Amino acid sequence: MSILTIGTVAFDTIETPFDQATMILGGSATYSAIAARYLADDVRLSAVIGGDFPDKYIALLEDRGIDVTGLEVIEDGKTFFWSGRYHYDLNNRDTLATHLNVLAGFNPELPPSYRDSDVVCLGNLDPLVQLRVLEQVEDPDLVICDTMNYWIEKAPESLKIVLQQVDVLIVNDEEARQLADDPNLVRAVSKIRAMGPATIVVKKGEHGAMLFHEQSIFWAPALPLDNIVDPTGAGDVFMGGFAGHLARAGRFEVDDFKRAVVTGSVMASFVVEEFGLENILALTPEQIDGRFEVFKALSAVPVAVSEPA
Amino acid sequence: MSILTIGTVAFDTIETPFDQATMILGGSATYSAIAARYLADDVRLSAVIGGDFPDKYIALLEDRGIDVTGLEVIEDGKTFFWSGRYHYDLNNRDTLATHLNVLAGFNPELPPSYRDSDVVCLGNLDPLVQLRVLEQVEDPDLVICDTMNYWIEKAPESLKIVLQQVDVLIVNDEEARQLADDPNLVRAVSKIRAMGPATIVVKKGEHGAMLFHEQSIFWAPALPLDNIVDPTGAGDVFMGGFAGHLARAGRFEVDDFKRAVVTGSVMASFVVEEFGLENILALTPEQIDGRFEVFKALSAVPVAVSEPA
Repeated sequence: MSILTIGTVAFDTIETPFDQATMILGGSATYSAIAARYLADDVRLSAVIGGDFPDKYIALLEDRGIDVTGLEVIEDGKTFFWSGRYHYDLNNRDTLATHLNVLAGFNPELPPSYRDSDVVCLGNLDPLVQLRVLEQVEDPDLVICDTMNYWIEKAPESLKIVLQQVDVLIVNDEEARQLADDPNLVRAVSKIRAMGPATIVVKKGEHGAMLFHEQSIFWAPALPLDNIVDPTGAGDVFMGGFAGHLARAGRFEVDDFKRAVVTGSVMASFVVEEFGLENILALTPEQIDGRFEVFKALSAVPVAVSEPA
Repeated sequence: MSILTIGTVAFDTIETPFDQATMILGGSATYSAIAARYLADDVRLSAVIGGDFPDKYIALLEDRGIDVTGLEVIEDGKTFFWSGRYHYDLNNRDTLATHLNVLAGFNPELPPSYRDSDVVCLGNLDPLVQLRVLEQVEDPDLVICDTMNYWIEKAPESLKIVLQQVDVLIVNDEEARQLADDPNLVRAVSKIRAMGPATIVVKKGEHGAMLFHEQSIFWAPALPLDNIVDPTGAGDVFMGGFAGHLARAGRFEVDDFKRAVVTGSVMASFVVEEFGLENILALTPEQIDGRFEVFKALSAVPVAVSEPA
């Protein structure tokens, strides 16, 4: 199955308590597409960049077999720029700067070759842009959507129209509570499902991720890492791994969703081990499969052997 | 195997955003012993109460088959009193009052019949009191210890002496980071293990619990509940269930510890569904076993069926 991933392609300047990086390649679509491409063969990227965007970065995406036909270049514009500083525990960050630049006028016109995409990944963007994409894809098999507190607060009405067309919403626990206006996560998820998405994935950072699908709840751990370097992009890589697994499986049964959540977690566990994209540029299938098995073992409850003694 | 649980027996006044209860039976030893008794036959309680403590509450413990020989009564003293108010999301609480009363002078003198206890549960108390208990138990098979930020800040030296004699430390993630002075949980756990306890259980509230034992890391989910009424005692019930499982298994292999963490989580999931102790006074083995299976299913990663398709 083919995957269309729409989002940002950006320059990031990142500070952590331990290190920093200036004007590196970032953006939700970049992270998501690179992760998805490890799992699925046909990954199509839609985003907008400025004339300042280096050819070598486009080549980086092309060399990985990512379809960039839908990467729009505004020659006299500047690429989206984001800068953030992580706190001591790396769980929280402050945004230092957001220069929308060309993103401000982003009105994606999908190339004809994108319109038959099977799995659509709507990165965290203005819901009106997400809607614009959905209008152009013909009968997708699965629509996966990310959003954030900014859109929940600023554009609740258009977000709700998007949600009516979404199959899987991926949010963090805080966003889920905010969107549903309910402090209890289980109740919040029920309320969000009533808005449209049959399946909800709640990301909990270092606490793992939860899947709510039909009557099932599934809990995937996060890999406890002793050396988290940079959490940037973890959520986008999660979505890429999640979508990539489902496109590869070509099937959306509950067990496929469960394994997709673990696959997303696996991919996210790699990206945080180095700055920016660095650690997901040269993974092998053996590394990905090996870490999948580590995740499985992490939460496997052993069967009772001989108790009560 | 026999279990000795030492901690508080108290009156609690609890406010949640939805309800309140005044002067109900509480205390860490109460919660812990009641939970442990569902799993293990020989549960011994050590605590101190005042002359104001009603006989019916002592009868409640005795009727459940809990050994209260070591429940010291100070006739002219008042029982420990705690009062707290939970925030809207029930994840945080403010302590409104702590009246130590008879707990201030607590210097436990274990009955001779307690001194051969196999599993010792040191509830969250002054480390000097925990040490006093350890001096009196003859060669226990397993020492499990709870503590909190108050003792980490106020009594770090005596706490470190206790930790040298502890096999399993149960703390929450914030306490682990504070005790080790390291924001990374995996590194924090390594540092704490160097202080004495070979096994660490990190409680993460609604995010589950993690076990660090030998080279293994195990992650137990929390049950997503849509109606959490009162989190009071959840940590104590967790310790009781954890210790109860190990005493019943009579063995301390890694798989026993994993199942003990799940059992602790199971027992904690019951107690939060009603105010105070209410929901753990009449559980059946079928309810406990049934919920254990629910926990297992919650985090079981399905095997791949036919992918890649």
